[in-house]
Amino acid sequence: MNTPIPSIIALLHGPDQPGIVARISNWIFSRGGNILDTDQYCDFEQNVFFQRVEWMHHEDRAHVRRLADAFAKMVQADLGMRVRIGFSDERAKLGVLVSKIPHCLHELIYRWQVGELKGDLACVVSNHRDLEPLAEAAKVPFHHVPVPRENRAASEAEQLEILHRYGVELVVMARYMQIVSADFLERLIAPVINIHHGFLPAFPGSQPYHQAHTHGVKIIGATAHYATANLDEGPIIAQDVTRINHRSSVADLIRKGRHLEQLVFADAVQAHLDHRVLVYGRKTVLFE
Amino acid sequence: MNTPIPSIIALLHGPDQPGIVARISNWIFSRGGNILDTDQYCDFEQNVFFQRVEWMHHEDRAHVRRLADAFAKMVQADLGMRVRIGFSDERAKLGVLVSKIPHCLHELIYRWQVGELKGDLACVVSNHRDLEPLAEAAKVPFHHVPVPRENRAASEAEQLEILHRYGVELVVMARYMQIVSADFLERLIAPVINIHHGFLPAFPGSQPYHQAHTHGVKIIGATAHYATANLDEGPIIAQDVTRINHRSSVADLIRKGRHLEQLVFADAVQAHLDHRVLVYGRKTVLFE
Amino acid sequence: MNTPIPSIIALLHGPDQPGIVARISNWIFSRGGNILDTDQYCDFEQNVFFQRVEWMHHEDRAHVRRLADAFAKMVQADLGMRVRIGFSDERAKLGVLVSKIPHCLHELIYRWQVGELKGDLACVVSNHRDLEPLAEAAKVPFHHVPVPRENRAASEAEQLEILHRYGVELVVMARYMQIVSADFLERLIAPVINIHHGFLPAFPGSQPYHQAHTHGVKIIGATAHYATANLDEGPIIAQDVTRINHRSSVADLIRKGRHLEQLVFADAVQAHLDHRVLVYGRKTVLFE
Amino acid sequence: MNTPIPSIIALLHGPDQPGIVARISNWIFSRGGNILDTDQYCDFEQNVFFQRVEWMHHEDRAHVRRLADAFAKMVQADLGMRVRIGFSDERAKLGVLVSKIPHCLHELIYRWQVGELKGDLACVVSNHRDLEPLAEAAKVPFHHVPVPRENRAASEAEQLEILHRYGVELVVMARYMQIVSADFLERLIAPVINIHHGFLPAFPGSQPYHQAHTHGVKIIGATAHYATANLDEGPIIAQDVTRINHRSSVADLIRKGRHLEQLVFADAVQAHLDHRVLVYGRKTVLFE
Repeated sequence: MNTPIPSIIALLHGPDQPGIVARISNWIFSRGGNILDTDQYCDFEQNVFFQRVEWMHHEDRAHVRRLADAFAKMVQADLGMRVRIGFSDERAKLGVLVSKIPHCLHELIYRWQVGELKGDLACVVSNHRDLEPLAEAAKVPFHHVPVPRENRAASEAEQLEILHRYGVELVVMARYMQIVSADFLERLIAPVINIHHGFLPAFPGSQPYHQAHTHGVKIIGATAHYATANLDEGPIIAQDVTRINHRSSVADLIRKGRHLEQLVFADAVQAHLDHRVLVYGRKTVLFE
Repeated sequence: MNTPIPSIIALLHGPDQPGIVARISNWIFSRGGNILDTDQYCDFEQNVFFQRVEWMHHEDRAHVRRLADAFAKMVQADLGMRVRIGFSDERAKLGVLVSKIPHCLHELIYRWQVGELKGDLACVVSNHRDLEPLAEAAKVPFHHVPVPRENRAASEAEQLEILHRYGVELVVMARYMQIVSADFLERLIAPVINIHHGFLPAFPGSQPYHQAHTHGVKIIGATAHYATANLDEGPIIAQDVTRINHRSSVADLIRKGRHLEQLVFADAVQAHLDHRVLVYGRKTVLFE
Repeated sequence: MNTPIPSIIALLHGPDQPGIVARISNWIFSRGGNILDTDQYCDFEQNVFFQRVEWMHHEDRAHVRRLADAFAKMVQADLGMRVRIGFSDERAKLGVLVSKIPHCLHELIYRWQVGELKGDLACVVSNHRDLEPLAEAAKVPFHHVPVPRENRAASEAEQLEILHRYGVELVVMARYMQIVSADFLERLIAPVINIHHGFLPAFPGSQPYHQAHTHGVKIIGATAHYATANLDEGPIIAQDVTRINHRSSVADLIRKGRHLEQLVFADAVQAHLDHRVLVYGRKTVLFE
Repeated sequence: MNTPIPSIIALLHGPDQPGIVARISNWIFSRGGNILDTDQYCDFEQNVFFQRVEWMHHEDRAHVRRLADAFAKMVQADLGMRVRIGFSDERAKLGVLVSKIPHCLHELIYRWQVGELKGDLACVVSNHRDLEPLAEAAKVPFHHVPVPRENRAASEAEQLEILHRYGVELVVMARYMQIVSADFLERLIAPVINIHHGFLPAFPGSQPYHQAHTHGVKIIGATAHYATANLDEGPIIAQDVTRINHRSSVADLIRKGRHLEQLVFADAVQAHLDHRVLVYGRKTVLFE
């Protein structure tokens, strides 16, 4: 058989203790594994150790999966750490929530088409029909689920049904202009990444560019974060900023912000798909 | 006489109307003036016109001053605009409020000594003695005014007396770690520039770097603004940011922030002294 | 008639002399014009004055055009300055030269479709067929002109014929991977904007990302400039940079550089179409 | 005895092979060491493995030093890698070469005085007397060694004698405006860090800001690098950039560049003193 053997990627975190690095690298080495990349970080304030380690075994795929299982069990049992395992040849299924604004969906499709995305767009769900042609041109199934104010629960149920039907493993809100409920997030069996068009925690909520304009700030930003029940307060994955000045109208801010948003958003999605993001508390560890 | 003739700098703003630029440049030209630089901006939402114009007359100093007075009167009477006049050879007197942290005072002294500052440090007033040697090495009078919690009013009265005695025309809070009262700002016959070690309006109040660390933001910033009665809400003059990551401790943030603070602060002070900042409402127009 | 009246935009430069601003604003004001925006700059080393002025007359379109002609004649005759006139309702025709790499063409199409571009894509000319579907999806005529090494002159003649047939007023090389001859640039009756995927003047010529990787630089960049007979030495319109580190492979550089290139390129094209770029010598004045 | 035990920092590089990470962490763990931080990188093109590892033993200082020696021998003998060892409580002695421009020396002194520098300023050597007061105020011995064009060799001999007499372990050229000879660099028993006031490899040699101004670039930069016999071509440690525009005079570039230079320079010196820089070929690996 000639298919390439996947590498294993493990994201671990748990209480720091002497010898973790040695035990992990030993375990891998003694089973014939070859470490391709490892990065670790210790939060000395909270005494939590974080590691991302990627390695290969020259074994067939089934054996590699068994080794990964064994590794996860060892880490949990012997080191008392939490672990998440990924494989280099896995492609996650993405569900996209959008409204009318195209640029974030556009950037995702672009990266997907040129092969930069470690995942596949499984479906687009929108409360409007505006982006249906964009999804269809990319041959991604599009579902129109209106979200009337008086019956959001039914809409969310329908959204959930669609997302689960496609088996999505990551939901991305690509400028989805509706608030999702805590219940929706809880029932969704997948993490959710949202892009906020403001430099959080400044300017949460709606119309951050209008707020920025009113405040007379000299720099605007965009923030990609995991969605949580507390709106705009989820763990931040990526942020970027750009300069503006007194001449910049709200329209200028929106235009300049567009580029920030699509880059920050798509970079955050890629980091997640590359198993480089580890959430703890309100924060993320982002392995480069 | 051989002293160089000063140029006149006027900062104007008021209701927009057709022909302002023509009338102003005409007035100057018809009196033999030569425009060196002019920049204007119109806020079409509020219909307010802003201009900074700098020009020269080949006349003696006294005559130049009379011309500037006449210009100001014309602008107010004929165009209904507010105007502020400066001269290129004026050096404003600065009063500095500090506590214990040296870097912003340090940067001001440096720029003053190498001749970059269009003003002079008249006095340093502090609630601690830590920076007395720094001020003295630069031959700037240092005054120690303790600010006990139970008698802030008396301390502020003493500060005011000192600042007015030196005739300061601009007060700069170079990491002064006390809140000043609305009354102090009102009685002070000079604008006040403050440096906040956070990317306002995110993280107002105290310990912005601790707040940033807790929030897990990926970018930190510093903000120079005019002080107003509403703490940390005055018109923003300058902001800058730098990247951090999960490895950055609060101590790292403080260290990286130091450079942001001293640059943003000193740049804002220079912009003010160069008559390039025009306040309106909560915002500033910053002419480059 | 109800069509909006276009504003006039003039870009001027020539020897500095007293009263230019007054004479220009006067001329406009005395004919009932209303200045919307004006920005000027004087290079005191070379004594050259530059101005961009935009204004409106409440006259019909034909009259506005006659006024613009009269203005241009006045500026040339009375002030000895060179002038270029544009109208706010004009949409320039763009000819695009590409090879196989899509992202710059992609960004142009995007901005055009969302209405950000003050111009229209008239045709795409390529030495490969790879981007034909992209052009066709946007309904822009695509022409395949192979450029064999042994007969570049014939290829360039064919390219010229196509570009002129469409009446293009600006040619943009959106990652066109061929060198164009001095003769081509001379015979082309339109300016040419090129994007170079390096921080010029570092890394001219081919494979700048490979060069950057070999040199171990910590920052990479992209440069948009007018094409001249001296390859990669034309007047720079816009540049931007991003950080890399020792972990960055050439592939990473190419990926990170893509975003720089498309932003810098499209921003430069927009600045040109907005009549905000004035070339003099090897440099540009870019009015914001 | 109560003095804190130093941690050991090792910088390694050599041919990649399976199990390096495991062997190194094992060696440390089996001797009771506790890894505080480790970062590694593999250049898969050249198959070279790089690691920075910092760890502690709860032993007395003499024992720690013996363990470090044993570690170095093991790495060289068993893994065929080159290794450099440092201790967290060592403070390197710095020799500073300057001419007349103060800001880089100023920043070094500042960081040293506030305790940010893992080293001590041992002496300042200059071909001019301008910065003598600055050195003296900081109580750093100052030596004036003129560098006449006709007898550079004698001057360099004198500089070498002084630097070696103070036992300097790192030489920093803090805007030293003379070219040093290959012979000087060879005889000096210490690495040399230089700051170049340009974005290398653009604008090598003298007057980079004048070159940048002539070229009309829109961004300027500064570069800190190890000095080698090939002027301005040594391995780059750090770079930073800032935006300029057509209004920026050479004087503006010099002023804006000053801040870049002092930050980039001092950051590079700190990275070196923290044992975070590993040179290979023309490049550096910079561990964050």
